[in-house]
Amino acid sequence: MPTISKKGNQMPESPIRKLVPYAEDAKKRGVKVYHLNIGQPDIKTPQVALDAVKNNNIETLSYARSEGSEEYRVKLSKYYKNNNINVTEDNIIVTTGGSEALFFTMGSIADADDEIIIPEPFYANYNGFATASGVTVVPVISNIDDNFALPKIEDFEKLITKKTKAILICNPGNPTGYLYSKEEIQKLKEIVLKHDLFLIADEVYREFAYDGLEHTSVLSLEGLEQNAIIVDSVSKRYSMCGARIGCIVSKNKDFIKTAVKFAQARLSPPTYALIASEAALETPQSYFDDVKAEYVERRNTLIAELEKIEGVKVAKPKGAFYCVAQLPVKDTDAFAQWLLEDFNMNNETVMVAPASGFYSTPGEGKNQIRMAYVLNKKDLIKSVEILKEALKVYKE
Amino acid sequence: MPTISKKGNQMPESPIRKLVPYAEDAKKRGVKVYHLNIGQPDIKTPQVALDAVKNNNIETLSYARSEGSEEYRVKLSKYYKNNNINVTEDNIIVTTGGSEALFFTMGSIADADDEIIIPEPFYANYNGFATASGVTVVPVISNIDDNFALPKIEDFEKLITKKTKAILICNPGNPTGYLYSKEEIQKLKEIVLKHDLFLIADEVYREFAYDGLEHTSVLSLEGLEQNAIIVDSVSKRYSMCGARIGCIVSKNKDFIKTAVKFAQARLSPPTYALIASEAALETPQSYFDDVKAEYVERRNTLIAELEKIEGVKVAKPKGAFYCVAQLPVKDTDAFAQWLLEDFNMNNETVMVAPASGFYSTPGEGKNQIRMAYVLNKKDLIKSVEILKEALKVYKE
Ligand SMILES: Cc1ncc(COP(=O)(O)O)c(C=O)c1O
Ligand SMILES: Cc1ncc(COP(=O)(O)O)c(C=O)c1O
Repeated sequence: MPTISKKGNQMPESPIRKLVPYAEDAKKRGVKVYHLNIGQPDIKTPQVALDAVKNNNIETLSYARSEGSEEYRVKLSKYYKNNNINVTEDNIIVTTGGSEALFFTMGSIADADDEIIIPEPFYANYNGFATASGVTVVPVISNIDDNFALPKIEDFEKLITKKTKAILICNPGNPTGYLYSKEEIQKLKEIVLKHDLFLIADEVYREFAYDGLEHTSVLSLEGLEQNAIIVDSVSKRYSMCGARIGCIVSKNKDFIKTAVKFAQARLSPPTYALIASEAALETPQSYFDDVKAEYVERRNTLIAELEKIEGVKVAKPKGAFYCVAQLPVKDTDAFAQWLLEDFNMNNETVMVAPASGFYSTPGEGKNQIRMAYVLNKKDLIKSVEILKEALKVYKE
Repeated sequence: MPTISKKGNQMPESPIRKLVPYAEDAKKRGVKVYHLNIGQPDIKTPQVALDAVKNNNIETLSYARSEGSEEYRVKLSKYYKNNNINVTEDNIIVTTGGSEALFFTMGSIADADDEIIIPEPFYANYNGFATASGVTVVPVISNIDDNFALPKIEDFEKLITKKTKAILICNPGNPTGYLYSKEEIQKLKEIVLKHDLFLIADEVYREFAYDGLEHTSVLSLEGLEQNAIIVDSVSKRYSMCGARIGCIVSKNKDFIKTAVKFAQARLSPPTYALIASEAALETPQSYFDDVKAEYVERRNTLIAELEKIEGVKVAKPKGAFYCVAQLPVKDTDAFAQWLLEDFNMNNETVMVAPASGFYSTPGEGKNQIRMAYVLNKKDLIKSVEILKEALKVYKE
């Protein structure tokens, strides 16, 4: 029998995937499950985007240009200019989600066994793209006690080797909700310039910055033009995760030229989704204001409720729609499974993401969970109530 | 300045891409260009698929399940059963085009420096997916004189090493139009069983088999269950290349389990396209009958006209919608460029794909071109007329 590849064996499973059968079983037993485990918002997609697809006049659904149509890229460059990022259409490649942008980026800058330094906890699928590309993820730990702020630059310095090609940050962070300050991005600028590294910023949550704080893009800093790469996506911005449109933005011409070759090999981003994404750029500001207000209220509710539980420590998110909490349990993998398998409160329970999957250092995050506040306020309050009760009765 | 990866440097450019600026220039000069160079059919997408998207009631465009919804996979398995391929939904992973299916397949079965044997000429992007995966393509040459039939099994045997993981065929072939016979697939079965290799069949043109010939799928042969992998796509079948939906089909559970991990990392295939693809399964048989009749007529026209030109040799395609022709010139790269740059007949010219890009052995195919018969009959006749005139005046 033919065998699969080592790489295939090493491909990580999604940290939530293991729990899915338990959630399905719970539902079969008639238990309602509140899903705090995934970044799939319940927010409506802007009507202008939905309508554009419904009103399309396509007769032959053709390939789009590999790097995205000039028209869409010109419009995107205007969006970035409005956000203090001075780029042209030539600095943009349209991708099939931020996911593909990450994959093209890793392939374009790193060979097998090259290293990319990433503050942990980080978006678990970085591991998948790295494994698929043969790249080694080198984690640098950040801490719940300072809300997962940027690790000390010395900690990065210690990890830089000849094989280091880039530092990858997620800003604002999934799973941390941390929003890097301008000063922190400045520090990263200095270290990548010093060591000739790329600075990749996953900015898919760029619009979700709260408390009057401003998001600092890696492409808004002078002097970083040749090093900075933005990974972006329409998924969260317009609550259209199923579209599968994202992009890569960079002023480094060699990099763009290389990433375009990856884009050519897979021919085209999805055409219907391009129509939706182009139209979405016309979304009125009021939509974002409402969405942000909604997330801020949810966050405040979730954090306030969580802080009432004894023994729970919460990192205060300033962006995105996730938060990491430390629980008074030893192993949140077991706890999360138990919540689905053995616990319910009036026939309801919660599904959370054990945080160990967001760490690459073995053993880290074992007592933490990630919660996505993608549910309405009432359901969030109920979810925390359930969690509180569960922690009371849970025996390890 | 940070540098890009070796892999990125090695990523091949599309063989047609170089010519695009010349085609654009020609158009700017008012010259009409007949495009025989790309596999983008002019055929209309089935109405049932287009309507499903126009009538969708989505309010939040959410992620789809990573491997595709159970419902769609169940329906797909019925399609395959109707085509003599006995599979269930668990044997199918829905992908973002056949392109992604190829990429997941290579990653799941081969590590860096592992080898995959492919009869050449072959679909040029196999090189791109192989480079992105770090896999080495080992070409085995097929010949225009027998219409690019399967190379002798001894030729494969000679190339098999410890690193060989699979044989990859395209059936029917792009660029060759060759349809492998049942006997040829049997021979491949024997060799892959003998050497414990995977047999990957790119069957994206499976419906396009002409002259009453039947397509033989690698999954229709008994005893090949653990070795056979089908790569498929809605792109050509329903003339919906822009949807970006394809799939992997295999009865090898380890392989499917591995490929699903690649699918999870990129989260979801495109949701609108899934709606279109699921509806497309309801396309009436008359649609396919009409499309096939149209392609057969085009093929017959193109071949007949080409054979009238002195010094031109044509491989007779039995499937897909491409044909390879040998021209009385030394370097079709230069010729194809000249057609766009320096030639026109009554202000019209043709764009063809130089065949060297479909070969991996350096120097092969230099006097061949690939033509896609995706134009109507009248335009095809005109295109060949232009080609004939061009060959008369062309000086190397
Ligand atoms: C941090 C981060 N980056 C990238 C992605 C990929 O998103 P998509 O491929 O939908 O754009 C996600 C999705 O959850 C994410 O959280
Ligand atoms: C032989 C072959 N395989 C795969 C593909 C990829 O097609 P898609 O990604 O649109 O399914 C193509 C497209 O032209 C092709 O010709």
